[in-house]
Amino acid sequence: MASSEIDALTQALARLPGLGPRSARRAVLHLLKKREASLTPLLHALALVDERLETCSTCGNVDTANPCSICADPRRDSRALCVVEEVADLWALERSRLFPGRFHVLGGRLSALEGIRPEDLTIDALVGRIGQGGIDEVVLAMNATLEGQTTAHYLAERIERFPVRVTQLAHGLPVGGELDYLDEGTLAQALRARRPVA
Amino acid sequence: MASSEIDALTQALARLPGLGPRSARRAVLHLLKKREASLTPLLHALALVDERLETCSTCGNVDTANPCSICADPRRDSRALCVVEEVADLWALERSRLFPGRFHVLGGRLSALEGIRPEDLTIDALVGRIGQGGIDEVVLAMNATLEGQTTAHYLAERIERFPVRVTQLAHGLPVGGELDYLDEGTLAQALRARRPVA
Repeated sequence: MASSEIDALTQALARLPGLGPRSARRAVLHLLKKREASLTPLLHALALVDERLETCSTCGNVDTANPCSICADPRRDSRALCVVEEVADLWALERSRLFPGRFHVLGGRLSALEGIRPEDLTIDALVGRIGQGGIDEVVLAMNATLEGQTTAHYLAERIERFPVRVTQLAHGLPVGGELDYLDEGTLAQALRARRPVA
Repeated sequence: MASSEIDALTQALARLPGLGPRSARRAVLHLLKKREASLTPLLHALALVDERLETCSTCGNVDTANPCSICADPRRDSRALCVVEEVADLWALERSRLFPGRFHVLGGRLSALEGIRPEDLTIDALVGRIGQGGIDEVVLAMNATLEGQTTAHYLAERIERFPVRVTQLAHGLPVGGELDYLDEGTLAQALRARRPVA
């Protein structure tokens, strides 16, 4: 007999992406069966995240400090700003360790379908940051999706009036990509952006 | 940059069945993005479960009380005992509201492959409960899997010496099952156990 506590936990887990009611129930049973190995660490980790993490009021990153460790790091190049859709994208770029500048997290992408308009994202804050000066280059690192590219175009227009170089990530073959398996859109992009062999 | 708190939460979530490292990361981002709608309720639900739920020392059910509400309910038929593999199976049977007796949760099933032996399950406790008398019927409600049925056979042998009726769930066509889509094992069971039309 599932008690109300178990129901509440099942429902809270079922709201996570990738879990539905059935898999949430399985997860709850796993947690109950392996309490010390599973429930206690999860509870502890969740409580720590809840207690310590906050959103950086400058860039939108999530960190234990505000401003976040990237915004506060004097070794980061403050003249380069990389705009991403989500915190996950910032993390992905940080894992590559290739971008020396700072970030700006939009909190999503424009979407007519989902009703997400410019005012739902942190676009005004981005324009404000650029307007303050001191930035030479804005890298629009949106996803290579229709909505990501629409957002990039919109941002490029909004930023146009500032004396900054606006760039975007290159599109083309992914590493390891085989022509035979790639979609036509990627192939067309790769062909259009072809470069002389070095 | 994912802080150590986020890493710890990602790892704790990735250990849940149905979630891997990637989906756990997505879940963490979801939790961080919707803190009040998602992280807080999950934390609260988890803490309540951790605080309030315990395993019934009689039957192995998980409940806010020990003995659990089923074991403690005087309206339940104490002469019928239903043996199940997992707490999830007990809940499934309780949802059907058809079994009036009490339960015994084995905590798994015998498995040569996974190295699960009789002493790893609560079989001795089950034999003890039956040995105390007062039980007329033991329903072996194992899963209709090879391991479930092996477990049922083993239990039947262990219980043989007691003056109780040992039964098991019927096997056959599931409700809505179409012959054309059912496996041969199920069809064979259904044919072997065929009954006169009422």
